[in-house]
Amino acid sequence: MAEDPVFERATRFLSALRHCQVLGLKLHSASQDGLTLVLPFSPRIVGNPLSGVLHGGALTSLMDTACGMSTLCVLPEFEVCPTLDLRIDYMHAAEPNKDVYGFAQCYRVTPDVIFTRGFAYQDDPAQPIAHVVGTFMRLGQHARGLTKGGPMAARSTP
Amino acid sequence: MAEDPVFERATRFLSALRHCQVLGLKLHSASQDGLTLVLPFSPRIVGNPLSGVLHGGALTSLMDTACGMSTLCVLPEFEVCPTLDLRIDYMHAAEPNKDVYGFAQCYRVTPDVIFTRGFAYQDDPAQPIAHVVGTFMRLGQHARGLTKGGPMAARSTP
Amino acid sequence: MAEDPVFERATRFLSALRHCQVLGLKLHSASQDGLTLVLPFSPRIVGNPLSGVLHGGALTSLMDTACGMSTLCVLPEFEVCPTLDLRIDYMHAAEPNKDVYGFAQCYRVTPDVIFTRGFAYQDDPAQPIAHVVGTFMRLGQHARGLTKGGPMAARSTP
Amino acid sequence: MAEDPVFERATRFLSALRHCQVLGLKLHSASQDGLTLVLPFSPRIVGNPLSGVLHGGALTSLMDTACGMSTLCVLPEFEVCPTLDLRIDYMHAAEPNKDVYGFAQCYRVTPDVIFTRGFAYQDDPAQPIAHVVGTFMRLGQHARGLTKGGPMAARSTP
Repeated sequence: MAEDPVFERATRFLSALRHCQVLGLKLHSASQDGLTLVLPFSPRIVGNPLSGVLHGGALTSLMDTACGMSTLCVLPEFEVCPTLDLRIDYMHAAEPNKDVYGFAQCYRVTPDVIFTRGFAYQDDPAQPIAHVVGTFMRLGQHARGLTKGGPMAARSTP
Repeated sequence: MAEDPVFERATRFLSALRHCQVLGLKLHSASQDGLTLVLPFSPRIVGNPLSGVLHGGALTSLMDTACGMSTLCVLPEFEVCPTLDLRIDYMHAAEPNKDVYGFAQCYRVTPDVIFTRGFAYQDDPAQPIAHVVGTFMRLGQHARGLTKGGPMAARSTP
Repeated sequence: MAEDPVFERATRFLSALRHCQVLGLKLHSASQDGLTLVLPFSPRIVGNPLSGVLHGGALTSLMDTACGMSTLCVLPEFEVCPTLDLRIDYMHAAEPNKDVYGFAQCYRVTPDVIFTRGFAYQDDPAQPIAHVVGTFMRLGQHARGLTKGGPMAARSTP
Repeated sequence: MAEDPVFERATRFLSALRHCQVLGLKLHSASQDGLTLVLPFSPRIVGNPLSGVLHGGALTSLMDTACGMSTLCVLPEFEVCPTLDLRIDYMHAAEPNKDVYGFAQCYRVTPDVIFTRGFAYQDDPAQPIAHVVGTFMRLGQHARGLTKGGPMAARSTP
């Protein structure tokens, strides 16, 4: 699988994010159908020393990164895609002393916005720890109308 | 305000939705900056006869409709925009025997996707009953690539 | 299945919601493991007359109702559970001229809050039209501290 | 403000999260009404070197942490509260070379679940970069029924 262009691009992308390096995030697999990251268990990502339960922030970072990187699976070339929204629903607590896997894929690709979905799991993908949905903005050469006052300009809200 | 083209377009739109007519939804105001609907209090939308508290579904419909219709405020002409996602967070219960107002506006407009936000309130907009965020797909002449297998085609998920 | 107490309770509940009767929502099945409603196709819930695509609000109401009613599957007796939050993600458009099924179940039950999840589909549950997550407040005899200024009292937000 | 027990507890809590120390998260203020963290601008949290725009993951971590820590504002004593769900909606891009503030507060407190809300901003709290909503489980002495098969036990989903 290492020869896959998506896999190579994803590896390069991940190595550039210091925030992810601290967590120890690694690429497990990547293809046009989706991407899986691994968050290796380590004492420094434990949120509760007594129980050994992972810090929620580490899981959130895993899934945020997995969703964002899954855009690499459907784009013909590298584009930076900022997060537009992200939602995570935790189904049950992660077990201590076990790695966590984060899978994500794109389920809708428009010229301007990419919709992604995924889940985190430990032993069994069919018993996910968390479900995630994330939406990302395309800013590459395909994006249109992104001048000042364009789509990213927030309208005032009361 | 009745001469505003957005107001007229919104009035026509609302009158075509039988689902909304049953609830009694009415247009309160509409301009380029957003749109407000009213859900008049009525015994038939009470979820709990003992307390007089509104059926949650009626409030959800109010906010779903307000967000969807707020796309009329920013589009140059009428387009049908199906919902891509919708989220509602209830802050506190609605008081019985009072109308509920639903305000929504667009905060990001791309050629393909429109992002909206709003809130429901009774007496005081600063004390909202619920916050809502909704995303809508543009299918009008500006939308591209919406052929079979295009953006709306779901990718299989494991 | 008709003798199942959950099924009977759900049937009674649904028949009391006029809003749902207008949509024609019917109970398809109900057990301790979850509940499925049917939204029969009908011209009056079509949002786009040209395409025959369902009005998004009808699907939202279906899923909102399915999640709310799924609390009946895990509660020992009837309790009114107002919606605390609700999220719907549409995967792809519903096909015209076909009924839509809405399944929901509870995945976490605490003494005060019930977390539910579900999806809408037409022919194939493995190709859902939409995913939904909803959270509901218990107000029954098991709920505590629900006096004035209690949990349902909103705190001011800036 | 440093004498406030909430402020002291929040400072201790933050210093124990290595993940947050890497990002450089600091406590700006904390009281019973909410809590504000600061994410100081630094080259290592830049996601796009060309534009200087922050890595979305850093903002997500800021808001996840702010929401989680805001539970300290309403609890009589320290409790570890795992995240149940989290949602972030980005309104517009953060400006480079500026710190980001993350405010969060609890808007509903039940014996088992705490609901929080907040927003991220740079210069002006009235022009937020992102809105966030998060729900947290109480596991402290007030929590009931958290034995095996209890609330945190996920029910199988089809």
